[in-house]
Amino acid sequence: MPKLALIRHGQSQWNLENRFTGWVDVDLTPEGENQASQAGALLKAAEIKFSHAFTSYQTRAIRTLWLALREMNACYLPESKSWRLNERHYGALTGLDKAETAKKHGDEQVKIWRRSYDIAPPPLAKTDPNHPSHDLRYADVSPADLPDSESLKMTLERVIPYWERAIVPALHGGNVLIAAHGNSLRAIVKHLFGLDEDEIMQVEIPTGNPLLIDLDDNLKPTSAKYLDEARASPLPEIKS
Amino acid sequence: MPKLALIRHGQSQWNLENRFTGWVDVDLTPEGENQASQAGALLKAAEIKFSHAFTSYQTRAIRTLWLALREMNACYLPESKSWRLNERHYGALTGLDKAETAKKHGDEQVKIWRRSYDIAPPPLAKTDPNHPSHDLRYADVSPADLPDSESLKMTLERVIPYWERAIVPALHGGNVLIAAHGNSLRAIVKHLFGLDEDEIMQVEIPTGNPLLIDLDDNLKPTSAKYLDEARASPLPEIKS
Repeated sequence: MPKLALIRHGQSQWNLENRFTGWVDVDLTPEGENQASQAGALLKAAEIKFSHAFTSYQTRAIRTLWLALREMNACYLPESKSWRLNERHYGALTGLDKAETAKKHGDEQVKIWRRSYDIAPPPLAKTDPNHPSHDLRYADVSPADLPDSESLKMTLERVIPYWERAIVPALHGGNVLIAAHGNSLRAIVKHLFGLDEDEIMQVEIPTGNPLLIDLDDNLKPTSAKYLDEARASPLPEIKS
Repeated sequence: MPKLALIRHGQSQWNLENRFTGWVDVDLTPEGENQASQAGALLKAAEIKFSHAFTSYQTRAIRTLWLALREMNACYLPESKSWRLNERHYGALTGLDKAETAKKHGDEQVKIWRRSYDIAPPPLAKTDPNHPSHDLRYADVSPADLPDSESLKMTLERVIPYWERAIVPALHGGNVLIAAHGNSLRAIVKHLFGLDEDEIMQVEIPTGNPLLIDLDDNLKPTSAKYLDEARASPLPEIKS
C-alpha cells in the first residue's frame, strides 16, 4: 500500500519580504535551504523507500527536493517536474508586499483574494515581464494553459489532471515524494481527502514539514501525520 | 542542429584521497562543488538553451548537474538518470589507493588495468558490501547487468544502448546536457567520434570543463571545444 509524502518548500527570498510570489522564480533563503535539509532528515529517519519524486518548474520547490534527496542519500531517485505543480498564480498582485496590496486594493479585497476558493486577483498584463509567456521554461506549454491569475479553484483544475496522469500511476508502482507549494499541495489534499471548499481553506501545510499520508490500494488516505510533530498544523479528517 | 554538452563531475572525496571509486557513491568535495558551479557559469555564458539533461545514479555526477543547472537558472530542465551512465566499475580495486594497489598487484599490472581498453580488474566479491547488488538504488536493474568489474570496453557496452535509446531521441528534440564520469563520457566520445581503442585511451576529459560538441542532423560531430580553454586537453580529430 503506497505512501505519499508532501513537502512544502522552505522560506524563499520573497516569503521573507512578505511579497506575493506566485510564478516568479525566487530562490530559497539559507533558512529555506536548512528547512529543506531538515525535511530530508525527517524522511530519512522514517526509513521510507521512495520510487519517484515530483516537483514544479520553480527553483524553490526543485531545490527543496534536491536538498531533501541529498539528506536522504537518494539523489538517484527519478524526478518529474511539471508547471502543473507550480504555486497559484497571483495575477496583478505578483511582486507586491502586503502593505502595498492593502493600500492599492483595500484590506477587505485582499482578504477575499487570499481566503476565497474561487475568486482570482486581477490578471497580470501579458506585457508584464513577469508574465509566464516571457519565460522560456514554459515554451512547450500551450499559451491557453498559461495563467494570468488564479484562484485556488483554478489551481486545482490544472493540478489534478497531472495528479491523475502522472502521480497516480507512480503511486501504483511505489511510494511517492512531492516537493511543491502551499496551494498546489492544497489542491492535492482537497482531492485526496474529499474536502469541500470551506474545509480546504482551513488547511495550512507548514513549510519544510513532510506530510506523510498512507493510502489504500484505491489511493484513499488511511492515515496522515506530519513528521515534525512539534510544528504540525491541524490535519483534515479522514472520511470513510 | 543539436548541441551536446558533456560535463565530467568535479573532485570527489575519493579523488582527493587518490582511491579507486568506481561505483561507490562518494560525494563531491567543496572544491568539486565549486567546479560544478563554474561549469554551469560557462554554460550560462555560452547562452545555449537545453531541452534535456542526463546523469548517472551516482551522487557526485547528479550533484554536479544540479549545481550547474542552478548556476544556469535552469533547475526546471527535465532530468533522466541511469545506472548506464555510471563510472567504470573498478572491481576488486574499489576503495584501494594507488599505493595499496601497487603494493598488492605491482605497478605494471595496475598500469595495464588503467591503460588497456579491454582488460578488467579482478571482480569485486558479490559478498562485498560495496557490490552494487547490496544497493537499493539498483533494485530494478537485472542482476545479470550489474557488474563485478569492468574494462572500458565493458563500460561502453552498457553506455551505448542507453545513448541509442534515450539520448539520441532527446538530441532529435533539442540540445542535451550530460553530467557523468571520466569513463562513461569516454564511451560516448569514442562512439560519437568513431575513435579506435588506442585513440580513446588518449582522451582525458578535464573535470568541470564542459565539452561542447556541435552535431549535424545525423548526429555526427562538426566541431568540438572545451568552454574553459585555459584548462582544455587535446580533443579527438573530427573524421569526415
